[in-house]
Amino acid sequence: MAEGIGIIGAGVAGLHLALYLQQHDIPVIVYSDQATQQMASGRIRNTVAHHHTTVAREQALGVDHWEIGQYGYFCHHHALGSPGPGIPPLRFPGDFEAPSRGIDYRVYLPRLALDYQERGGDFRVGPVTGADVPALAGRHELIVVATGKAGLAGMFPLRADKMPYDKPMRRLCGGLYHGVAYSAPKGVTMSIAPGHGELLEIPMFSAEGFVTALLFENVPGGATEILADAQYGDDPKAFENLVLDILRAHHPAVFERADPAEFRLTGPDDLVQGALTPTVRQDYVQLADGRWAIAIGDAHTVVDPVIGQGANVASYEAWELGTLITEDPVFDERFCRKAAARRANRVEATVDWTNLMIGLPPAPHLLRLLGAMSASRPVADEFTNNFNYPERQWDILATPERTDAFLARHGMG
Amino acid sequence: MAEGIGIIGAGVAGLHLALYLQQHDIPVIVYSDQATQQMASGRIRNTVAHHHTTVAREQALGVDHWEIGQYGYFCHHHALGSPGPGIPPLRFPGDFEAPSRGIDYRVYLPRLALDYQERGGDFRVGPVTGADVPALAGRHELIVVATGKAGLAGMFPLRADKMPYDKPMRRLCGGLYHGVAYSAPKGVTMSIAPGHGELLEIPMFSAEGFVTALLFENVPGGATEILADAQYGDDPKAFENLVLDILRAHHPAVFERADPAEFRLTGPDDLVQGALTPTVRQDYVQLADGRWAIAIGDAHTVVDPVIGQGANVASYEAWELGTLITEDPVFDERFCRKAAARRANRVEATVDWTNLMIGLPPAPHLLRLLGAMSASRPVADEFTNNFNYPERQWDILATPERTDAFLARHGMG
Repeated sequence: MAEGIGIIGAGVAGLHLALYLQQHDIPVIVYSDQATQQMASGRIRNTVAHHHTTVAREQALGVDHWEIGQYGYFCHHHALGSPGPGIPPLRFPGDFEAPSRGIDYRVYLPRLALDYQERGGDFRVGPVTGADVPALAGRHELIVVATGKAGLAGMFPLRADKMPYDKPMRRLCGGLYHGVAYSAPKGVTMSIAPGHGELLEIPMFSAEGFVTALLFENVPGGATEILADAQYGDDPKAFENLVLDILRAHHPAVFERADPAEFRLTGPDDLVQGALTPTVRQDYVQLADGRWAIAIGDAHTVVDPVIGQGANVASYEAWELGTLITEDPVFDERFCRKAAARRANRVEATVDWTNLMIGLPPAPHLLRLLGAMSASRPVADEFTNNFNYPERQWDILATPERTDAFLARHGMG
Repeated sequence: MAEGIGIIGAGVAGLHLALYLQQHDIPVIVYSDQATQQMASGRIRNTVAHHHTTVAREQALGVDHWEIGQYGYFCHHHALGSPGPGIPPLRFPGDFEAPSRGIDYRVYLPRLALDYQERGGDFRVGPVTGADVPALAGRHELIVVATGKAGLAGMFPLRADKMPYDKPMRRLCGGLYHGVAYSAPKGVTMSIAPGHGELLEIPMFSAEGFVTALLFENVPGGATEILADAQYGDDPKAFENLVLDILRAHHPAVFERADPAEFRLTGPDDLVQGALTPTVRQDYVQLADGRWAIAIGDAHTVVDPVIGQGANVASYEAWELGTLITEDPVFDERFCRKAAARRANRVEATVDWTNLMIGLPPAPHLLRLLGAMSASRPVADEFTNNFNYPERQWDILATPERTDAFLARHGMG
């Protein structure tokens, strides 16, 4: 007998969906490759923050455990390095309408997994691979794949039409650090070193308390790429000094708040280095027994972390799927088509916007918008708040003409 | 210099959009082939009623001129003739959550056209054909084609994937009559004569006051088809007697309320006979100068009137397009794609549901649903109220399995 919804994966997508369904009395089982206590340890998973649209979902799910005034942040500080002689560097802020919040996923995910279990949720721990999916499908009315691990994303064919890159555009070095004072007002600093890449500096709460995430997005061949290869374990102090040197040379807006005497990685597991090729996969597939599987989160899209949208879009996909399940619990192709259609605008905008941000050389209309942000606080605020609404950001950035129309609305035609 | 939005057509789609844009201070010009006073005369245009979702739009637009308690109706009365020996006829009602309303379009449209003009709207009268569209496009940022007249719909290619029929499935005879007492509670009667077709009896307000619309949907080759060919002008009394005879023989639930002494067509122009092949067209096209034209209402879809959805979906398309124009006034392909995507679920459901209702022979799961409605008031109420929400109706009727799931939710598994 089929038992409601089977969710494979216990990341933000899987847990938000599980909590939503549980809240609506819809039978659900979560299949996780890690027990709750394992989720609390190991290497840092990402350096992502949740924007207010995601925080609002957490509030609705009753998992808003971190008081937003204390744990949240309120703005973006932009720091654009000089792209060439005679062009000055720029610094300007942009405000959110409501705060965002960065919580280390080794704190966040186990807390939500516990919430789900304490409310009676069925949480099963063990490896799941693609080979296990047919058996799981026989036990459930619908399978939701909410992880890209164990090759599970491969069930869903790639969508070449939404994949402009066949290789990573940035090589990453993300870590948690002590010794960087928060900006005032407390915010994320987005520092751009033309030709070399970006730095995202994010106020983050981890098991160590309040720390600072530094995510270096390094252009291959650029002066900061060395960070993606440097081995912390070989010589921690040398690694930290390298990071400080790169901050000083390329990201001075953050370096100014670093105290070299206190600056250090918070621990050997608190560093992630690598690179990813952005992928988009088909929304759903039919399984051999006629049932359907839907992809959410990393199983559906993997975006570069440069604008921190991955977790937010994963939560969004979970929420949209959850609402559709409550509205129309008949799990056929019509259901899957509706699930795909209702999320398409925001998800595709997230992908397209992120891919624009990592394009090389930067698109002229993106540079024009950044310049306008430096001259107009309302423009900067709207761009910043649109981190909550990627489809609105893409309305502004999809074409040069759209950027022009947006600036004209702000009197900058 | 481009002047906002150009709307070709002053039917419900064109006027609802024009009023919406006017209300939001967006420049708009309506191009109508009829002056306001001409819209008040001539042959009856249809026998459609507006369901509450449409009435709510009229309220928001400030054109809710006909007090709903007096002019509205509250339910559907279903009368199913016996399909064969030993199977009894069935009668059962279904309630709306909020009233619907039928107003003769020769009263309705000129009133709304006047509202628009009295509020300062630019309303230009004259013929417009496809040949005029390029010149109009040069004067506007976006062209909206809101009429199928003058071959304008032909700008938009047909969508064969949504057109199961290559010929009309019913031959129509719709007219306004005196001499039929309203049902109690006041409602529409949907009478089905198996093998011969349907009758929709609709309380309608016309220039004559409260009258009754009778829309005969006649199956080609059936016993009532003669109504589609009978010539009222040759012998009005003979025509009316024929209608009475057919009511008596095939639609007794309505005949019971007809007073033969008073029964008559309200006037020679108050009759429309014909047939139509349901069409769906592409949502938008690019014009030679690079601008875009979007189809709404009849230019986009023409459905059989059997469930009276045409005007309601036209209003819905106007509303959805209006909201998108206020949200994202950049009229490029992205805009058109979004316009198409946001209306697709309801519009396609309207088309698919209507086409199911006129299918021959009737689909077994549709008959199963009608049978369940006769046995369960909640089922009948939900089907009835879903005339406001075609996408929900299609959730119930898209497949036999969906009908089964719906009935199971009502304890009729």
